[in-house]
Amino acid sequence: MEQSLMLVTDFYEYSMAYTYFKEGRHTEIAYFDMFIRTIPDGGGYYVFNGLHKLIHFVENFKFSTEQIDYLHSTGAFDQEFLTFLSTLSLNIDMWSVPEGTPVFSNEPVITIRGSFIEAQIIETILLQCINYSSLVTTKASRIVRAARGREVLEFGTRRAQGHDASIEGARAAVIAGCMATACTEAGMKYNIPVSGTMAHSFVQVYDSEYDAFLAYARNNPENCIFLVDTYDTLRSGVPNAIKVAKDYLIPNGYRLKGVRLDSGDLAYLSKSTRALLDDAGLQDVKIVVSNSLDEFLIDDLLMQDAKIDVFGVGENLITSKSSPVLGGVYKVVAFEKGETIVPTIKVSDNIGKITNPGYKKLYRFYDKDSNMALADLIALADEIIDPNEYEIFDPISPWKRKTLTNYIVKELQLPILKKGKLVYDVPTTLEVQTYHYEQMQTLWDEVKRLRFPHKYYVDLSQKLWDLKNKLLEEKTI
Amino acid sequence: MEQSLMLVTDFYEYSMAYTYFKEGRHTEIAYFDMFIRTIPDGGGYYVFNGLHKLIHFVENFKFSTEQIDYLHSTGAFDQEFLTFLSTLSLNIDMWSVPEGTPVFSNEPVITIRGSFIEAQIIETILLQCINYSSLVTTKASRIVRAARGREVLEFGTRRAQGHDASIEGARAAVIAGCMATACTEAGMKYNIPVSGTMAHSFVQVYDSEYDAFLAYARNNPENCIFLVDTYDTLRSGVPNAIKVAKDYLIPNGYRLKGVRLDSGDLAYLSKSTRALLDDAGLQDVKIVVSNSLDEFLIDDLLMQDAKIDVFGVGENLITSKSSPVLGGVYKVVAFEKGETIVPTIKVSDNIGKITNPGYKKLYRFYDKDSNMALADLIALADEIIDPNEYEIFDPISPWKRKTLTNYIVKELQLPILKKGKLVYDVPTTLEVQTYHYEQMQTLWDEVKRLRFPHKYYVDLSQKLWDLKNKLLEEKTI
Repeated sequence: MEQSLMLVTDFYEYSMAYTYFKEGRHTEIAYFDMFIRTIPDGGGYYVFNGLHKLIHFVENFKFSTEQIDYLHSTGAFDQEFLTFLSTLSLNIDMWSVPEGTPVFSNEPVITIRGSFIEAQIIETILLQCINYSSLVTTKASRIVRAARGREVLEFGTRRAQGHDASIEGARAAVIAGCMATACTEAGMKYNIPVSGTMAHSFVQVYDSEYDAFLAYARNNPENCIFLVDTYDTLRSGVPNAIKVAKDYLIPNGYRLKGVRLDSGDLAYLSKSTRALLDDAGLQDVKIVVSNSLDEFLIDDLLMQDAKIDVFGVGENLITSKSSPVLGGVYKVVAFEKGETIVPTIKVSDNIGKITNPGYKKLYRFYDKDSNMALADLIALADEIIDPNEYEIFDPISPWKRKTLTNYIVKELQLPILKKGKLVYDVPTTLEVQTYHYEQMQTLWDEVKRLRFPHKYYVDLSQKLWDLKNKLLEEKTI
Repeated sequence: MEQSLMLVTDFYEYSMAYTYFKEGRHTEIAYFDMFIRTIPDGGGYYVFNGLHKLIHFVENFKFSTEQIDYLHSTGAFDQEFLTFLSTLSLNIDMWSVPEGTPVFSNEPVITIRGSFIEAQIIETILLQCINYSSLVTTKASRIVRAARGREVLEFGTRRAQGHDASIEGARAAVIAGCMATACTEAGMKYNIPVSGTMAHSFVQVYDSEYDAFLAYARNNPENCIFLVDTYDTLRSGVPNAIKVAKDYLIPNGYRLKGVRLDSGDLAYLSKSTRALLDDAGLQDVKIVVSNSLDEFLIDDLLMQDAKIDVFGVGENLITSKSSPVLGGVYKVVAFEKGETIVPTIKVSDNIGKITNPGYKKLYRFYDKDSNMALADLIALADEIIDPNEYEIFDPISPWKRKTLTNYIVKELQLPILKKGKLVYDVPTTLEVQTYHYEQMQTLWDEVKRLRFPHKYYVDLSQKLWDLKNKLLEEKTI
């Protein structure tokens, strides 16, 4: 049974809804965009994720009697409004880029069309669903790339910021290319691989490390990854692992799958461990390491030729520790007045906080020959993009212009909901993983660099740029 | 309906449990301690929290058929073990410091006594419950202190790392002294105050800012905090707020409660806003600010004499952004062999990772006259602490000694569970808030300093220190 998320919502959504309702404006239609302003960790892209949770929320949108009673108890709303809320269902239209898509700042990744109340009341939960899942997918994508083809496992459940962070974080990690998670619930809920063998306490329970490994091997012979650093990695842990492999596993037709190092210098210890294992004829035994890993430490370890086959990554992945917030925002961009869609803009002293007005579409140009992504374009929804030639320009420095040719242009947002009804086939987690992998192949390595990546072009159409500047001039007193 | 947390557990807990079960060792008894090694943000203390969730978990501990079926599907366990799990209930003993207690690194804040399987299988969820709640309570405690008596509101729901992070984070914030949260669900679940008025989109919906404020005032006259930075704070926002106060609120017997600034330079804008309000005779109108606040920015703003009455804090609080992980660990410290409790130690190359062995108690000495906390002591459980005189010493530099007198010594851990039964009256959230406030008064300001705090004494008893050194000598090959 899942927890209801109906009230996981900032109280101001209700205060605003109440005013719209009492003023008789709640059936008017608005358009909202969700986008981010800054990519975590100074990266060149982020990975959109969390849509499945949002869809689940919208499909189960209904206030319970207990929730309505609680809202009543705040004293802020009258009975007429509460009755309205208690029968409210969502009839919104929603467009979104698919989960697993690499995207860029200021791009409208979700667009909502709905009544003032319906479009507003989902703001908080929409942002929460997308912000965290996208954050961790982005972090995991960086970590997986740093591992250069070696396996990465997600180990962060105990350090996750709450229960659903551990479950959604595990799913996000697998989408970004992690091979498995330690979080059992995520394995069950999302049908993704789980893994795990032993903690130090297990080794301490037995009179000797050898006895501990042997007991484990007797009962889990197909899944032996021994934790070798409880006492002394090279003098005790690895030799005992080798001994149990030779005394028990190999005679019984099994192989030792791996050893895990969880402390000490992982470059030095992994090389020495590799030598001990190879000398014992155990060239196939994998070396798994854990302990405060992130993309930079993994990169450094591999640069030092550490002999590591598998990285177990915990807190730095599941919390995106070095950059633990994805600041997604949800801004109104247009209103319907009769048949007309009227754009609106939010001005700010802070130039980065000025919004792109209007009901818009997001496009990506791919080179026809190489299939590599060339640039993204944000345009007004009624614009038609020439399929053969298009001049893009930098919205900050509009004299920087470039004419694209020989491309395929794709709309990145797909229709998800039409009048509240799902019109999208929600993919499985492993399908999203595959899609993400394919999409990442279309980005140049320069954009994917961990440090100081090349800036990918995200441009505004001339028509949108003109509209934005016109509205800015009008609003500035 | 709450989500089951039974499988929010690292898979290795089951692999270990399976081995204990198959080896017939699962009824043997072990002691585990939970503690942290490093305090977030370089602080002088952290605030223990999350126990209520752990109690709830233990009291509802039961595998569902679906969960057992999932474990079966992994192929890692036999039917006998799965049958055992399906009927497993927890008969553990648990001692814990109460929620809201300020504590220090390496202190055993929770101690568990239970069978190998029962004590081990709860590890992941125990750490997850305590780590996140303690982390956010600690962060919020720093922020509340930086605000020097001004109100702090919790605004982070949309940036929280998942749904229960937003709910538990809101509860943690209130325990640390925040006045209210924007998270409606937290208000309902924990009976804590909620607050919230309007977003920029609300102002944009209306033809003018004045119309927006007036519409809001007509429908929420008792709770008017206008967001004044949608267009231009000083030339449009604040004047319109004043106008609506004079045109509508005051004539109808209401007061304007406040204005909120959400961008721009908050020191400059708050002073100018204060002047405008005061000139208009609105000295009682509060100035609320938000926008990327944390303890350091709040401290700086107040140092610059910013005219701020209320701070709304979002992502930096709810994720503890500058230090988003509390690294709590759960380590086996002793085994029962017949009537004897045999201590165990985990050695490590990393000296900070060596554990304190044995079944222990945690004490705090308070000065009899001032009621200020003097030092904490970790001792073996069977030691008797002299109520009149006690010599403490630094466990790293044991020549640093000090004799305490004129004190009251209190055991910090309380019995929570006895053979799985709750023997503790779980306080309400607001009771924990009060307890936390009182406890904070017993800490010297030097320990509570935001930057480079004084190190509080946490010492080992001579007997424990001797035991630790004896075990280290034995274990070192």
